[in-house]
Amino acid sequence: MGFSSQQTVIVGLGLMGASLALALRPHVAHLVAVEPDAPSRQKAVERGVVDEATDDLRMAVKRADTVILCAPVRVILSMVRDKIGAWLRSNTLLIDIGSTKQDICEAMGKLPIGIQAVGGHPMTGKEVSGLDAADPFLYANRPWVICPTRRTTPAARGRALALIEAVGALPVEMEAERHDKVVAAISHVPYLLSASLVATVRRFAEDDPSVWDLAAGGFRDTSRLAGQDIKMMSDILGTNTQAVATLLAMFRVQLALLETMLISRDESHLVDALTPIREARTAWYGQYERRMNGNGKHR
Amino acid sequence: MGFSSQQTVIVGLGLMGASLALALRPHVAHLVAVEPDAPSRQKAVERGVVDEATDDLRMAVKRADTVILCAPVRVILSMVRDKIGAWLRSNTLLIDIGSTKQDICEAMGKLPIGIQAVGGHPMTGKEVSGLDAADPFLYANRPWVICPTRRTTPAARGRALALIEAVGALPVEMEAERHDKVVAAISHVPYLLSASLVATVRRFAEDDPSVWDLAAGGFRDTSRLAGQDIKMMSDILGTNTQAVATLLAMFRVQLALLETMLISRDESHLVDALTPIREARTAWYGQYERRMNGNGKHR
Repeated sequence: MGFSSQQTVIVGLGLMGASLALALRPHVAHLVAVEPDAPSRQKAVERGVVDEATDDLRMAVKRADTVILCAPVRVILSMVRDKIGAWLRSNTLLIDIGSTKQDICEAMGKLPIGIQAVGGHPMTGKEVSGLDAADPFLYANRPWVICPTRRTTPAARGRALALIEAVGALPVEMEAERHDKVVAAISHVPYLLSASLVATVRRFAEDDPSVWDLAAGGFRDTSRLAGQDIKMMSDILGTNTQAVATLLAMFRVQLALLETMLISRDESHLVDALTPIREARTAWYGQYERRMNGNGKHR
Repeated sequence: MGFSSQQTVIVGLGLMGASLALALRPHVAHLVAVEPDAPSRQKAVERGVVDEATDDLRMAVKRADTVILCAPVRVILSMVRDKIGAWLRSNTLLIDIGSTKQDICEAMGKLPIGIQAVGGHPMTGKEVSGLDAADPFLYANRPWVICPTRRTTPAARGRALALIEAVGALPVEMEAERHDKVVAAISHVPYLLSASLVATVRRFAEDDPSVWDLAAGGFRDTSRLAGQDIKMMSDILGTNTQAVATLLAMFRVQLALLETMLISRDESHLVDALTPIREARTAWYGQYERRMNGNGKHR
């Protein structure tokens, strides 16, 4: 069953919103962007990313039958909590792409009955941000988590799935709480480790600045997440504190186990502990590579 | 001053040794490989990587005026401690490429007087290993640390520098102890973090295996080092335990600082702490990219 929508509104013309616009455009009748930045609005219309762009959220969403919120988590939260509920028509599908889901889904659950709201998190992205980096295949073959809310009717779920399939993404359904724990493990804790590593090297460099000159590929990869946008990350950490703290505690245990064997020079146990870790990483990476190279439906 | 050597011996035809052979070949009169694996020896000679290949370390090194040990740290250590000293001629330059330097340099310092021994660590590598991945430009524009030993005469130092420059690498001179702390910070601690992260996700996956399906680019990069060869890493960790333990303790402090702000929901201080970390990573990455794109002498 294909995705159909007469008036589709994408809120936010960053990388994610603009890429979604490009991917959705062939499937929708009229595509409207809501974006506060005037040059981005102009560019998006000139390049045919959307049919129309406005800074008036209210005017745009009140005629919409589909609204997709493509903004940092707390911007989404404030729109869902304070604004959009009174403006949406009954039966409008509301979905978002925020990186944490519990707070957003809870807020969606308090919207007026009749609004069809589904939490969403596409597991995709790029090193670069903004409209200029927009890519119609950003979502193709990537998992897109959807989380039910108290406003997710079977019809809402069906429309969300159709939207996700229209852009070539692979829908994964899970509860918001479970989603937030998973991303704490694979994304938010890795960010904090990466930031703490850079902080450590920075302290070390006060005594020996040559550390920066010798750092190479291993440091590059392990430290990459420390370069992520801080506003985005502080929204994420602030709305997923408990899961991140829990996973950090689990991490500390694993690190302490390895460290104990290291310091006590118990090398045979250290090798025994590292072996299944290496195997797990290798197995995961093989599966990830196949996934990234498009063993899904869309190429 | 160019590098000159009548009989040059490379011990070990893995990625590093074979690449070094390809890079050195135009500069040396006669290049011999010592390698226990017969098929590798045959391939190396057939492909012209070296002039001659043997499994007889003693015969090869006793006629050499330059010997380069390209093996895992403890293999190098056992050669330096137990074998090679009695076989080398006076005035032979002995250099190695082991990843930790204190133990190796200390062992080199106990070699018979007359042997010219210098510790070395080229900061380069590849995802793939073995002779088939050999690359004559593997060392070009990459830092190559050399560490003095009690057997490093000014002539030995000069010959080591000439060798490094012959393969296009950028020599960096530092004491072995300082080297080992630096690599603990940028390489060995990152490895343990990466392994501990994979161990955490593995534990988490016992309750929720979907974590593997959703893990994407952030996890890929942060977990990459966990896939490194365990024999190599256990040699490294076992010969750099104290520096790794010290740097891990520094890391724990940095992580605890961020974690405290996270759990206490002190977001403004968290942002204040993350901002200079992000700036340091961004500044380093810019410098690293310029270095990798060959702002050095050789392209």
